[in-house]
Amino acid sequence: MGENLTLEGLRDLAEGAAVLGTGGGGDPYIGRLLVERQLRAGRQVTIIPVDELPDDALVLPSAMMGAPTVFVERPPSGQGNVAALRALEKHLGRTAAATMPIECGGLNSMMPLLLGAQLGLPVIDADGMGRAFPELQMETFAVYGVPGSPMSIASDHGDVAIIDARDDNVRMERLARVMTVEMGGAAYICDYPMDAATVRRTAVPGTLGLAERIGAALRQARARHDDPFEALTATLSGTIYSHGLVLFRGKVVDIDRRTVAGFARGQVTLASLDDPGDRMVITFQNEHLVARRDGEVVAIVPDLICTLNTDTGAPVTTEALAYGQRLTVYAISTPEIMRTPAALDCFGPAAFGLGEPYVPVERLAARSAAGT
Amino acid sequence: MGENLTLEGLRDLAEGAAVLGTGGGGDPYIGRLLVERQLRAGRQVTIIPVDELPDDALVLPSAMMGAPTVFVERPPSGQGNVAALRALEKHLGRTAAATMPIECGGLNSMMPLLLGAQLGLPVIDADGMGRAFPELQMETFAVYGVPGSPMSIASDHGDVAIIDARDDNVRMERLARVMTVEMGGAAYICDYPMDAATVRRTAVPGTLGLAERIGAALRQARARHDDPFEALTATLSGTIYSHGLVLFRGKVVDIDRRTVAGFARGQVTLASLDDPGDRMVITFQNEHLVARRDGEVVAIVPDLICTLNTDTGAPVTTEALAYGQRLTVYAISTPEIMRTPAALDCFGPAAFGLGEPYVPVERLAARSAAGT
Repeated sequence: MGENLTLEGLRDLAEGAAVLGTGGGGDPYIGRLLVERQLRAGRQVTIIPVDELPDDALVLPSAMMGAPTVFVERPPSGQGNVAALRALEKHLGRTAAATMPIECGGLNSMMPLLLGAQLGLPVIDADGMGRAFPELQMETFAVYGVPGSPMSIASDHGDVAIIDARDDNVRMERLARVMTVEMGGAAYICDYPMDAATVRRTAVPGTLGLAERIGAALRQARARHDDPFEALTATLSGTIYSHGLVLFRGKVVDIDRRTVAGFARGQVTLASLDDPGDRMVITFQNEHLVARRDGEVVAIVPDLICTLNTDTGAPVTTEALAYGQRLTVYAISTPEIMRTPAALDCFGPAAFGLGEPYVPVERLAARSAAGT
Repeated sequence: MGENLTLEGLRDLAEGAAVLGTGGGGDPYIGRLLVERQLRAGRQVTIIPVDELPDDALVLPSAMMGAPTVFVERPPSGQGNVAALRALEKHLGRTAAATMPIECGGLNSMMPLLLGAQLGLPVIDADGMGRAFPELQMETFAVYGVPGSPMSIASDHGDVAIIDARDDNVRMERLARVMTVEMGGAAYICDYPMDAATVRRTAVPGTLGLAERIGAALRQARARHDDPFEALTATLSGTIYSHGLVLFRGKVVDIDRRTVAGFARGQVTLASLDDPGDRMVITFQNEHLVARRDGEVVAIVPDLICTLNTDTGAPVTTEALAYGQRLTVYAISTPEIMRTPAALDCFGPAAFGLGEPYVPVERLAARSAAGT
């Protein structure tokens, strides 16, 4: 049986999702307010485990696409996301038994909760990125053979499209991207339609629950004046995200950030408070991609590189980075399903144009500790 | 019963469609070759009158969207147009009884013939523009209440989308336009799905047949060394395009042509051979929009302004205009269905940003003859 989300659980989940957003994914804040309004109106969000549904039940993952900043200026009416789901149901000639996130990090952790509350549709506790990534083809679903097509895309004006790029998920991403821009910069999508058996085979399980536990751990650490990073590491221990570790503590001394082809690209430089010559440079494309300490790679995509407020552990997104902030760079190991050769082909360093190979963050840490 | 198009009929139709293209619509040449190949392979194009089908038969108009020049560099594989039709059939859950042009002028006169030959689908002798226009909402279908949505759009790569902008045809045009660009600059569409009764109520009837007769008249005039413009006027007389008249004869002395927001915009200036001070300036946006003689409007959209070779009557498109060409500017009155207030709202002068009101070309000619 599913579990109904409480207001406190929702807030915890939103903060944990911002941690898993690894600098990107869009601030869940606006999405959280939308879901809160649903809960206050008496509606419920029912989160169900990945093994709850029968094998052949239809699952339609849901998300927003585009710039989350658009939502701040023009809050969603709550019609576009429903229109996207209904259009894909109609196209497939089937009714969805559940929705789920394609991306548990950032704003898109909230969008399926909103849709679930609006329609009384359960939300599966799993996702297709295990974090945040910038493009629709960067999904474990895609890695393990699920086509993203047919997908639906809708605006809040009521226009909706079905895109079918057959098994070419990169092409689907491109077609959906131009539609998103023409729809005003933000749109609602349902993609990777699949049955529950396929969700079990291809999704990263338990990520909504993990986000909620991360948020709760940070909240409790603050209340008790405990170290938030120790709380985080304890929360991750024993999960499929087993390694959580502090990479660096410092102060932001330089930010180079520009919008290129619809992405926030750039890098942030932190200097150690103890030794200003000791520096960490993090390169990002919406999400943090690689962290280098004094030129050496210490963490690289798809492992999670999180920039957190040193005092509170609160996540700081790339757009909120500012000179002088005291940040702790915290790395989280991705689950094994995201570290296979096929997964690394899809969203490993080369997929972002990085020349360095993927080396698991815990192995990089062990090397560093061994002084090699 | 329908009539099967001959090779000669096809060539005549293509030339007549270029005349009705009123300077734009894309040269039908490539499309004609594609249809010729079908005819040579033993397939048939069956053109049926608008009253042939039962009221409730489904008609799916078909066309290409984007830059016809793309076809020259990358000839259509013959899969994209079929994919567009099949996708819309599937979406509607119905099978098309016929296709038809949305635009009888230029290349899009040929695209339904190609699809008809490929699939053995009859082509209705009627269209939605009665000439060529640059955008999807500029249709008599739209003027008389038919939504363009849902529409399908497909590339030759096999990706296909269904766009549903409900009754907002301008929005549909915009969404389809960005998809076309992302699909490589040219795409195949089926839009304005409707039943045969609605075609009869909203289409411009007989325009394929008229194009064929125009082409035949020009061909025969050449063979007999008759005046091609007299032949053209005689052909139009008694049709719904009743007035055909020579506006000007001259030599191209200036061309200002630039590509703005995907359109070929500009103007061409002709000087009279007898009196170089006597000039005609034609302003175009893909198609010719307004012709001014010595500053006075002598023809304006939606009446047809055609630039034809003075010796042969062969149509010259805006992209083929060149300094020194000897051209005859020939105007054709649009049918009454395209002159109602609702029609003029959709594709009259103001729809193209022109300040002048619409005055029928035959009335302007009468004024001019009366010396007012």
